[in-house]
Amino acid sequence: MSIIVQKYGGTSVATIDKIKSVAKLLIKRKEAGSNVVAVVSAMGKTTDNLIRMTKEISANPSKRELDMLISTGEQITSSLLAMTLKELGYDSISLTGFQAGIKTGDSHTKAPILDVDIKRVEKYLNEGKIVIVAGFQGMDKNGDITTLGRGGSDTTAVALAAKLNCPCEIYTDVHGIYGTDPGIYPNAKKLDYITYEEMMEMASLGAKVIETRAVELGCKYNVPIYIALNTGECLGTYIKELDESMETKVITGLTVNDDDLMVTINNVLYNTKDIYNIFNKLSSRDINIDMISQTAPVNGYVNISFTAPKCSKSIIEELVDELKTNMEKIKVDIQEDITKISVVGLGMRTQSGVAAKIFKIFADNDIEFKQVTTSEIRISYTINTKDREKAVSNIAKEFNL
Amino acid sequence: MSIIVQKYGGTSVATIDKIKSVAKLLIKRKEAGSNVVAVVSAMGKTTDNLIRMTKEISANPSKRELDMLISTGEQITSSLLAMTLKELGYDSISLTGFQAGIKTGDSHTKAPILDVDIKRVEKYLNEGKIVIVAGFQGMDKNGDITTLGRGGSDTTAVALAAKLNCPCEIYTDVHGIYGTDPGIYPNAKKLDYITYEEMMEMASLGAKVIETRAVELGCKYNVPIYIALNTGECLGTYIKELDESMETKVITGLTVNDDDLMVTINNVLYNTKDIYNIFNKLSSRDINIDMISQTAPVNGYVNISFTAPKCSKSIIEELVDELKTNMEKIKVDIQEDITKISVVGLGMRTQSGVAAKIFKIFADNDIEFKQVTTSEIRISYTINTKDREKAVSNIAKEFNL
Repeated sequence: MSIIVQKYGGTSVATIDKIKSVAKLLIKRKEAGSNVVAVVSAMGKTTDNLIRMTKEISANPSKRELDMLISTGEQITSSLLAMTLKELGYDSISLTGFQAGIKTGDSHTKAPILDVDIKRVEKYLNEGKIVIVAGFQGMDKNGDITTLGRGGSDTTAVALAAKLNCPCEIYTDVHGIYGTDPGIYPNAKKLDYITYEEMMEMASLGAKVIETRAVELGCKYNVPIYIALNTGECLGTYIKELDESMETKVITGLTVNDDDLMVTINNVLYNTKDIYNIFNKLSSRDINIDMISQTAPVNGYVNISFTAPKCSKSIIEELVDELKTNMEKIKVDIQEDITKISVVGLGMRTQSGVAAKIFKIFADNDIEFKQVTTSEIRISYTINTKDREKAVSNIAKEFNL
Repeated sequence: MSIIVQKYGGTSVATIDKIKSVAKLLIKRKEAGSNVVAVVSAMGKTTDNLIRMTKEISANPSKRELDMLISTGEQITSSLLAMTLKELGYDSISLTGFQAGIKTGDSHTKAPILDVDIKRVEKYLNEGKIVIVAGFQGMDKNGDITTLGRGGSDTTAVALAAKLNCPCEIYTDVHGIYGTDPGIYPNAKKLDYITYEEMMEMASLGAKVIETRAVELGCKYNVPIYIALNTGECLGTYIKELDESMETKVITGLTVNDDDLMVTINNVLYNTKDIYNIFNKLSSRDINIDMISQTAPVNGYVNISFTAPKCSKSIIEELVDELKTNMEKIKVDIQEDITKISVVGLGMRTQSGVAAKIFKIFADNDIEFKQVTTSEIRISYTINTKDREKAVSNIAKEFNL
């Protein structure tokens, strides 16, 4: 008998009525002849409400205790869903992360899955039960409850599917993966399929439908992932290995990210020690920098630019003050109204000229770009936020996204 | 270093502010030189709210799933309390029931504690941590989460104290154990101490401050139990073995219970088969009957009365209809406005005349009683509910309760 792992996110299980709808979808699949595992998130705003309580206690609560607290959210959903299935006459059982054998590292609030002991899930599937697993959580070697961080339930689902050697379906509140954000470009097209590599680039660049880690895991264990609307009525998007059935497109997706700022440090003495000093200081404070660019040296000085998350702004300002004590000549400019636009596509490996086409679009439409970086399957540009819609719609039209 | 187990009920941890107050009490005890274990219940109405959700799903939800669901309530409180202690600079760790080694039977929603593996709690105490344990829950041999039923957190606390060989303090929203219910007799006196045996009788008769099972466990392992108001400011009541320091009273307590109804079956043929048939039917439907009385046979017929919980009324009516098919002559009367009054005291073992004194009180005050049953340390009477206050106040005055 085939097995399917399905995952339902927080909005899909936000109320008892929605949980009942999910139960019906699981039953439909069971009746169609599959053994079914469902991974669920916390109901709607449950996690937010739990975290709000901690704010009355501490600005920086113990992460170990935070995991203990917020893991209850998924446990609640899973028991309610199993209860609903039993009420509808279908045998079912709910499992917490650790009961489902999810073994993690001990970095609380963002623990990696190290292994899945699938015995208990398999036993219940063999008994004909619909198995409900609390997503987003596991247990470390000390027997402490951990959570997996943002998008953790996706990772739980894909990890279970990898161990059960079956496909994974992720049901959510969007119709699938779009070539670009329909919120910015309303004509954006839904993709029928996308490769793991492209999806990883898209997810890491800010496409929020699925977490990068889950896609990585799917890629590593070759788990076909299907993402679709939680009504189960519309065709979604498959994330899978490249195969011959896929139409070759040069560009599969365009992502837009407004979460970064750009720091420019002018008049840096052109020697490796000073430049090393800047990036070493940033890394010592865990600033996640990206898109580094440097001008050619003029009179022994260079200008260096890089992007970093907007939330790091105050730490960066602190570090800049420290740098100024030793590097008196530098002038620092922090720009917050920038947007990072990235095009992603496996086709770029074989087709050249993508960058040139985009430069032409920028020139034709008066779009100033500040930085450009490339990898094997993507090109990213930093532009002024005011040019965002213009850039997105022109690129999307050109590449039929 | 001495160890103390404290238990805080739902009203004591109903809000974050109340959790902060509990944290301060724990710290005070820690600073005074004790190793501290705190057992906590779910915050205020949390459990009720979780159960309300299940009502939208099923009139009779899966008990295994119900345990999975409601055990989250205590887990939430315990993590928030540990978080608060850490914020105040005191090392602390929260444990679910199973993490604290609470091993139970598998009768979900009312599982008995079978054993406590105390290793993990001891380890953390040795590290100087204040250990917070989620009350009311444990794990069965299948690895399923169980709950212990009504008053389960008291049982958790006493079981931990038994294994740690230390006293147990139960903090609640009343000042301790009263000789009788102050809601009925406002002059009721708080007891300084009461023996396990007396408290077990009182608790099983409906005094709701502590669950019978917890007292039984305390008695079995000789755990001194102290019950007091959760502010920690007033002297409460000790539940312990009889010792010489205790003043000998004939009657320690008087309990009042309005939860029962009285069933009278008239014209039962006086043969063992018919009488067996009645009680067998009741027991087959798990009706918890009490205070059975039977008139002397007249012309080969007897009248039988018994009390049973008011919540069993509809089942009893069903059973009565079934009985009538074979026992055509019987006439059944169900009376709901009855009250059971019980006096409890170790002194009754050695002093006679208690029953006589109470019969005199009833006669002097025109109180009709319907049934009377006695055990070694208690006498119970069924009276009309309208006479309740009169009976209680006269008995309380007579025995100085």
